[in-house]
Amino acid sequence: MLYLTRRERFSAAHKLWREDWSEEKNFQTFGKCSNPNWHGHNYELFVTVKGNPDSETGFVTDLSAIGQIMKQEVIIHLDHKNLNLDTPFMKGKMTTTEVLVIEIWKALDNKIKSIGARLHCVKVQETENNAVEYYGN
Amino acid sequence: MLYLTRRERFSAAHKLWREDWSEEKNFQTFGKCSNPNWHGHNYELFVTVKGNPDSETGFVTDLSAIGQIMKQEVIIHLDHKNLNLDTPFMKGKMTTTEVLVIEIWKALDNKIKSIGARLHCVKVQETENNAVEYYGN
Amino acid sequence: MLYLTRRERFSAAHKLWREDWSEEKNFQTFGKCSNPNWHGHNYELFVTVKGNPDSETGFVTDLSAIGQIMKQEVIIHLDHKNLNLDTPFMKGKMTTTEVLVIEIWKALDNKIKSIGARLHCVKVQETENNAVEYYGN
Amino acid sequence: MLYLTRRERFSAAHKLWREDWSEEKNFQTFGKCSNPNWHGHNYELFVTVKGNPDSETGFVTDLSAIGQIMKQEVIIHLDHKNLNLDTPFMKGKMTTTEVLVIEIWKALDNKIKSIGARLHCVKVQETENNAVEYYGN
Amino acid sequence: MLYLTRRERFSAAHKLWREDWSEEKNFQTFGKCSNPNWHGHNYELFVTVKGNPDSETGFVTDLSAIGQIMKQEVIIHLDHKNLNLDTPFMKGKMTTTEVLVIEIWKALDNKIKSIGARLHCVKVQETENNAVEYYGN
Amino acid sequence: MLYLTRRERFSAAHKLWREDWSEEKNFQTFGKCSNPNWHGHNYELFVTVKGNPDSETGFVTDLSAIGQIMKQEVIIHLDHKNLNLDTPFMKGKMTTTEVLVIEIWKALDNKIKSIGARLHCVKVQETENNAVEYYGN
Repeated sequence: MLYLTRRERFSAAHKLWREDWSEEKNFQTFGKCSNPNWHGHNYELFVTVKGNPDSETGFVTDLSAIGQIMKQEVIIHLDHKNLNLDTPFMKGKMTTTEVLVIEIWKALDNKIKSIGARLHCVKVQETENNAVEYYGN
Repeated sequence: MLYLTRRERFSAAHKLWREDWSEEKNFQTFGKCSNPNWHGHNYELFVTVKGNPDSETGFVTDLSAIGQIMKQEVIIHLDHKNLNLDTPFMKGKMTTTEVLVIEIWKALDNKIKSIGARLHCVKVQETENNAVEYYGN
Repeated sequence: MLYLTRRERFSAAHKLWREDWSEEKNFQTFGKCSNPNWHGHNYELFVTVKGNPDSETGFVTDLSAIGQIMKQEVIIHLDHKNLNLDTPFMKGKMTTTEVLVIEIWKALDNKIKSIGARLHCVKVQETENNAVEYYGN
Repeated sequence: MLYLTRRERFSAAHKLWREDWSEEKNFQTFGKCSNPNWHGHNYELFVTVKGNPDSETGFVTDLSAIGQIMKQEVIIHLDHKNLNLDTPFMKGKMTTTEVLVIEIWKALDNKIKSIGARLHCVKVQETENNAVEYYGN
Repeated sequence: MLYLTRRERFSAAHKLWREDWSEEKNFQTFGKCSNPNWHGHNYELFVTVKGNPDSETGFVTDLSAIGQIMKQEVIIHLDHKNLNLDTPFMKGKMTTTEVLVIEIWKALDNKIKSIGARLHCVKVQETENNAVEYYGN
Repeated sequence: MLYLTRRERFSAAHKLWREDWSEEKNFQTFGKCSNPNWHGHNYELFVTVKGNPDSETGFVTDLSAIGQIMKQEVIIHLDHKNLNLDTPFMKGKMTTTEVLVIEIWKALDNKIKSIGARLHCVKVQETENNAVEYYGN
């Protein structure tokens, strides 16, 4: 079993904010991430798939095909977007990195299967100090 | 003459947008950076000062003092903020990285002088592929 | 289950040295790391915790809370310190990166539990070429 | 159990190409990686070994010993070489990163055992966006 | 005056080799870079242009336009190519990084002028340890 | 004129400390860098030389020759050493990065001339946030 990791990047705005909470409670809970006027990040998305190499090509799967799926299924909805307002799969959800990796997993899982590999890990690096990983359960 | 560089970071939202232009013209000119709902970046700010080392301390100036000035004069107005809406020294200005480095220079110049050094360069790295530098004229 | 990783950094001096060995045996075993006058590193500490996201906040736990625990329990004893002489939890121990990750784990484990998460991995990157990870057993 | 990772680097040429296929089929399958005149990369090789720390030295094993084995068994055959033409353990094989990590594992496994550690993972980073990991089965 | 830097990447094969020299002399002069079967690198190309920001847009020039010129004029001839055999502007030349930055400058200079900016610096990073810069004279 | 930059690394201990000052005054001036028991860093040394490319070889000068000079003249005295106690060219001097770049310049200048290039810049990166450059006057 081999594990292939592909990185794609996106630059997005977001805020951590519950509409049903006061500004004070939002600030107490989410700190500077609750700025009502948004803030943003250069996110790095690492998708790891697993599989066995094909005896003819030596490929598990073409990593650029993984990149294409990442772009079509998630990056197009994330890059130069507002995660709270513009991203279909984040609508009505908290835009923490935790929720983001779970939703990205859901958006990619079947598409990865359709090219003969299996999704192993979705990792999002939000800043050089913070990252979250999800393995599907 | 020695050149000291200090890095600080900020995560901010912005958009490239002229209110006196139509959405179409904004999009034609600024592309995906004109998303009305904002996007954002992890910016890296590199400030370079120059001076001669003190014979007693071996310091041109304490680099952590430079860091303090950067935080008090600019980072506090940039980090987890919206550059178009929240940053006093960007009000009414285009929030391109070009304009940003000039305004950061203006915000820092006198303060750097006041601790006995001279501002040499303000550099902002917007993404791993794009950066802008300004040397004061 | 989600895995959150927080990075903090510390700059420290140390040497690999057994007092009950001769200088020759120390040098034979530990090479240049046995320099009696010490050497040092910019260490990077990556702490990974695991847990489930809270349905209200979307947080497993606030990553900046993890950062605070890291600073209070370990970084304060490591940064700009001598690992052999100044660090309480390394007293009388070899200051290899192997021993360091185990002792950092012990210093963090209960505190991480107390904020509702579980410690998953302690990783220390000593140089760009060398790193050690510990998963608690 | 502790996990130690050592990085070494190599710069090599290769192409993805089957002699028993036409140039067209090679290009269809491998894209720009099938350029008949070769292309190349700065590869990063990360080898992770596992073991328990020695009570006297605090070492699982000397990481520079791992580095030596990596150099003698694999880097010498990879650095400034053509993976298709010059590397004994890649002869007659596809030079995908997938096949490469498996062959590097085979070349290292016994040597790592001989210094009292166990091979845990071989990872090759081909570009800043693409990496492959192998855990031995 | 502002300085904008855009990074693009290319993966290429090359060798340092003079046909009018013996293999011995090539090896004596160029060391492992003279491997007859080629080797390769992940090169990073940094192009810096200078100019004044437009008062309406806040742009010196659109950095993605710089990226487009870099791709059309040079990257297309360098990426997944053999610098000695495939790159028109390197034909018959030594493929040292020194010669490469000069030829990239020549290939870009007029195109950069045509979008209203001036070329300031071409930098190529060959490995994490080696880089060459050229300022046009 | 071309500019070639070579990076080498060293891991060293040091402290900022004047023997003719009290511990209090040392701490007031140098903060945590004055820890009597030392601290340390992974320093990165970037040496830039300038010259014209040779018409036969395409080299300004062999970058590995620059690396050799760096190793023999400075790295050997810095790596796994104590800058205050072990480094001949730092004896009796403050071990700030400012003083270090000047002394490294003096140690390299003539040797670089002897291989037909000219020293342009010595840069030392002390941490990911702090760096100092010196251009010889």
